[in-house]
Amino acid sequence: MKIADIRVRAFWYPSQEKRDSHGHTHFVGEHRATQALVTIVCDDGSEGHCFGPAQSLRPYVIDSFFKPHLLGQDPYHRERLWLTLADMQRVSVGQLTDKALAAVEMALWDWAARKANIPVYKMIGAFRDKVPAYGSTMCGDQISGGLSTPEDYARFAEKLVQRGYKAIKLHTWNPPISWAPDPKMDVKACAAVREAVGPDIALLLDPYSAYSRVEALWLGKEIEKLGFAWYEEPMREASKSSFEWLARNLDIPIVGPETMEGRYQTRAEWIVSGACDITRTGVTDVGGIGPSLKIIHLAESFGMDCEIHREGPGNLALCAVQSNGRWYERGLLHPFIDYDRTPPYLNQHCDQMDAEGFVHLPQIPGLGYDINFDYINAHPVEI
Amino acid sequence: MKIADIRVRAFWYPSQEKRDSHGHTHFVGEHRATQALVTIVCDDGSEGHCFGPAQSLRPYVIDSFFKPHLLGQDPYHRERLWLTLADMQRVSVGQLTDKALAAVEMALWDWAARKANIPVYKMIGAFRDKVPAYGSTMCGDQISGGLSTPEDYARFAEKLVQRGYKAIKLHTWNPPISWAPDPKMDVKACAAVREAVGPDIALLLDPYSAYSRVEALWLGKEIEKLGFAWYEEPMREASKSSFEWLARNLDIPIVGPETMEGRYQTRAEWIVSGACDITRTGVTDVGGIGPSLKIIHLAESFGMDCEIHREGPGNLALCAVQSNGRWYERGLLHPFIDYDRTPPYLNQHCDQMDAEGFVHLPQIPGLGYDINFDYINAHPVEI
Repeated sequence: MKIADIRVRAFWYPSQEKRDSHGHTHFVGEHRATQALVTIVCDDGSEGHCFGPAQSLRPYVIDSFFKPHLLGQDPYHRERLWLTLADMQRVSVGQLTDKALAAVEMALWDWAARKANIPVYKMIGAFRDKVPAYGSTMCGDQISGGLSTPEDYARFAEKLVQRGYKAIKLHTWNPPISWAPDPKMDVKACAAVREAVGPDIALLLDPYSAYSRVEALWLGKEIEKLGFAWYEEPMREASKSSFEWLARNLDIPIVGPETMEGRYQTRAEWIVSGACDITRTGVTDVGGIGPSLKIIHLAESFGMDCEIHREGPGNLALCAVQSNGRWYERGLLHPFIDYDRTPPYLNQHCDQMDAEGFVHLPQIPGLGYDINFDYINAHPVEI
Repeated sequence: MKIADIRVRAFWYPSQEKRDSHGHTHFVGEHRATQALVTIVCDDGSEGHCFGPAQSLRPYVIDSFFKPHLLGQDPYHRERLWLTLADMQRVSVGQLTDKALAAVEMALWDWAARKANIPVYKMIGAFRDKVPAYGSTMCGDQISGGLSTPEDYARFAEKLVQRGYKAIKLHTWNPPISWAPDPKMDVKACAAVREAVGPDIALLLDPYSAYSRVEALWLGKEIEKLGFAWYEEPMREASKSSFEWLARNLDIPIVGPETMEGRYQTRAEWIVSGACDITRTGVTDVGGIGPSLKIIHLAESFGMDCEIHREGPGNLALCAVQSNGRWYERGLLHPFIDYDRTPPYLNQHCDQMDAEGFVHLPQIPGLGYDINFDYINAHPVEI
């Protein structure tokens, strides 16, 4: 069996969310968004698929990196192919992104699991078939009735609890909002949400990622008083020493790293130095399922949990195979967006949640996307 | 899909090897040896198999531990089932051995890969399809022309190089041989082998496992002079501090731990404290393929190699999925035994080696055993 082709179909779909100038996703009026479907085609005609960001999967990326290293290769050689591609990143000067690498790697997992006629998480070896989800809010905005005030967060948290969530994570206000960041406003939002949902809902905070040590410590102490369950990236992760210092000075578990480069090797350094109490991986942060499994296994070897970053079937599969992590991150959520609505490029939602707050693993063969190819083929976009 | 039954078939076969009173395998005259085949049966009649030691797989072990925790369960839940069984070991006071756990866990891998119609190593994600092997000798003996003198080792090493091996590991003399252990004799054997094979064959040493620090350091310095490539378990592994001290004082890579309990958690401690330069796992040491993958991934996170302990298709699969390990351990070998002869309970040898010293991964679906069920059924043994 050989890889015969790699195809990318970019397509548009109606969306209500958009990234701001600082990279944070917000609710906006309905508009056309673009996404890409990567397809690995093998010489027997079998296919594996994964979605990814169109801007990372332009033709020159496919032609420069993926085709030269994948065409003619055995699609079961995921480890070798991933290492080759990851090594290319060293000299690709940012053109070959982790998100593109993740999409292609997960398309290889999808291909293998479709061939095997089982879901990816069962191919890896399952720990569970459903995972409790936390509702993960978008960052704060300036939309009336959106996420513009502590009271907005409180009202939205009540709705999330009614929907079934047993845990909620707040992303608070960031630039380019003129007055943000503001640790005092973060605390007000956290306090309002705690007041609204009572003591039994787990609450998590992911604030501005570039607070000073003094700000980060103060904010951490405040959310400790509010009984928060973890504290995520309140400072730039390039300063591991700052996280060691913060973890020594706070009781609340510090979760990370998330954005710092270096994948499993960086996590190893953080774990050993005590810079985190819970570590973190996500398929788009580290380039796929394979490197994420390495991080889960690394953490388990040190008796540490590894919480999974972001939504989607690849991350859901990671949650389903690990014993050392509790939650699936469902979102990003906003009061004006119905997250439960199936997007038009899927035939069914890929992280369906029951009324008790559990997301159930899709049982279709492959990664878990039930893809609406007709929609995708009917809505092409040039990239 | 549910697990419907777990069966064990013990059988006899002609063998030329036997363990001595101290647990080391030697050449002996032909006799009847016993082994067991564990079979997981699912409710659709599909089966997964693995061989294991009969004494670890007696009916009371199957009835007390495996049946209560596996029957009625989803066979794809390898991670959950393994963790449950591993947890049982805490209270089983040695009755549930790692070898039994490994056999059952690998039968679950075999089942899943047979269902998927691919080899296990491709289900995990392959790095390579063939692995260079080192010829791993039996321990020294007192058999004329066997492994009784340094000259015996030298003659045998020449034969191994002719067979294709590019690396050789010596197991030297141990109790109950009256004069063993003796570091000076170990050095004589190592020197004779180096003299016989020349500088280009990689040589490895696994001597007596309970030398003192002084003996271990002296022996290590001597084999450094002989250009040996690694040094394995020359002291009791319960003293991690002794290995830290040894690694600090030697240039030759120290490989371990191997026999110390604690699996991935113990390896994490050894890696962080500098007690090893290369770490080690094997399916029968840690209870299967799953925990071994955790160790491989842990080591990779610290830029460290993990060399795989012992022969067999489970260990060969581990070698095939890792980038951070070089060799497959083929053996144990002895001048009077033809290791390349297919045992009667298999239809073909499970680690066939070519003339260049590469073992090729079996391409049959499952773990890689091509089992002769007729032979096994015709040669039953009560256990």
